[in-house]
Amino acid sequence: MASFGEIGERELIRRMLKAVRPSGRDGPGDDAALVDISGRLAICSDGLTFKRHMPETMTFEEFGWMTAAVNFSDLASMGARPNGIIISLLLPVDMDEESIFEIMNGTDQCAEFCNTFVIGGDTKEGEGAAVGTAIGSMEGRVPMTRYGACPGDIIAVTGDLGTAAAGWHSIKNGLGLEDAESALKVPAPRIEEGMALSRSGAVTSCIDLSDGLAEAAWSVCRLSHVGMEFRREFLPVGDDVIEVHETLGIPLDEMLLYWGGEYELMFTFKKEMIKELYAHDIPFTIIGEVDNGDSPKISELEKTEVLGHGIY
Amino acid sequence: MASFGEIGERELIRRMLKAVRPSGRDGPGDDAALVDISGRLAICSDGLTFKRHMPETMTFEEFGWMTAAVNFSDLASMGARPNGIIISLLLPVDMDEESIFEIMNGTDQCAEFCNTFVIGGDTKEGEGAAVGTAIGSMEGRVPMTRYGACPGDIIAVTGDLGTAAAGWHSIKNGLGLEDAESALKVPAPRIEEGMALSRSGAVTSCIDLSDGLAEAAWSVCRLSHVGMEFRREFLPVGDDVIEVHETLGIPLDEMLLYWGGEYELMFTFKKEMIKELYAHDIPFTIIGEVDNGDSPKISELEKTEVLGHGIY
Repeated sequence: MASFGEIGERELIRRMLKAVRPSGRDGPGDDAALVDISGRLAICSDGLTFKRHMPETMTFEEFGWMTAAVNFSDLASMGARPNGIIISLLLPVDMDEESIFEIMNGTDQCAEFCNTFVIGGDTKEGEGAAVGTAIGSMEGRVPMTRYGACPGDIIAVTGDLGTAAAGWHSIKNGLGLEDAESALKVPAPRIEEGMALSRSGAVTSCIDLSDGLAEAAWSVCRLSHVGMEFRREFLPVGDDVIEVHETLGIPLDEMLLYWGGEYELMFTFKKEMIKELYAHDIPFTIIGEVDNGDSPKISELEKTEVLGHGIY
Repeated sequence: MASFGEIGERELIRRMLKAVRPSGRDGPGDDAALVDISGRLAICSDGLTFKRHMPETMTFEEFGWMTAAVNFSDLASMGARPNGIIISLLLPVDMDEESIFEIMNGTDQCAEFCNTFVIGGDTKEGEGAAVGTAIGSMEGRVPMTRYGACPGDIIAVTGDLGTAAAGWHSIKNGLGLEDAESALKVPAPRIEEGMALSRSGAVTSCIDLSDGLAEAAWSVCRLSHVGMEFRREFLPVGDDVIEVHETLGIPLDEMLLYWGGEYELMFTFKKEMIKELYAHDIPFTIIGEVDNGDSPKISELEKTEVLGHGIY
């Protein structure tokens, strides 16, 4: 098995892109890739390192998926349709070709899952890192930002909370909670949900939960100059989260509020337009309300407390 | 002076983007940046590491410029007009804030030089690397690729050859050749030239010389299924290259053909359309001709030899 150092940078990226994009004629091989975009473009970039973002049990394929997923999730939260992703790898010289292909396979699979593909890349010698840059088009939809939330808006979330955290605890403690472990390692970007949300016209702000609910809430509060009040009993708790809580005694708040690594979308919407969300077949759970304050709070019966910051 | 580890990733990228983009409202702070593109989009990504791409005498500001320049040069070779660049940094935790700002300042200055700006970014803990992703629009021009060269086309280059190599030798040996050193450390992407070349309609292929003339020629030969014959006496040699050759005895071929790190454009064009190049005010030097072979060769008087591969 040839190592990265033996194959060389130029040859390697050529082989990789040929593997994921058999046509071989457009983009790969050239200085830049070409894409046709209709309307406004959304673009984001996010990088992961082996050392910091790849737990022991994660495969290179899962690492590749994750690199793509974090970027597609950023597009999802804007309401963009992905048009492609570029992957820049920084690889140790002794890394074997199979592992590199596994990373690219993972990236490619996630791109396919999001109905798009890898459009280009670059490979350099480095410590072991992958930086993805995803582009998407708004197709006339209004981009969802973090600064449009208004007092009185309702706060909601797609899917359950805490599952990625439960997956992490399951791996660490050998609980074998497969759904949760897979939610952590092979997260599904909420592309369709993001597009439907922006299409609905009801949404005033949107953000993904990659840094956890508390951090997401702090970010929207800061940028929208509002406060938020979450209702603890409204938070949708995944089955595996309950199991981890009961088996290991991990506090529910820690998993639901302060963990990151999950890719649901948190959004705010105009109360009077809730019917538009139903009309667009968007599954969601209401978890709170935007208020005139300047911080996110959580209340339960008669008690209200200001949220802390994320620990992930 | 606070270090990267003390400031934290999220806060740092926010400060950096605020510094380079005072409006603070569009893109930075959100999950993705938004850009309006007219026509076809060109996108490319290229990363540099401190360890491998930052010679001792290079400042962080120059490293930042270089990260942006390698990407804008890729856009230039397609004939695209830059619309922005995203920078993902992987930084050691103990790196001080001032150095990080220097990188971003360098990136920002290069973007400004190319009439565009930094539109977003990401910061993670890592070994010390910067990955840039630049986007540009074709605005109706036909993209210049590496696979359109035809036998009979003329080969030309913008600017002089070998200056970056001369700069490297000047630094290593304390020759103080400032222009050459600056060409190496603060290269100017040929944006205007690239757009004019694609506008001319005469160009059949184009590539930048970041990997050196020989590698560029091999790449175009392979992708266009042609050969190339360069004329040694036609190669435009920078003044500093002659000085390094005469002072240090470095072979001219090594600097002109096999070094990389320079950002002139090599292009092929239809012989009968040379007037179009003049009409578009493009400065260029003819250096050879495309032929029916399958490799790049160089000839001098009666002698012709196949080119080697780059050493950069």
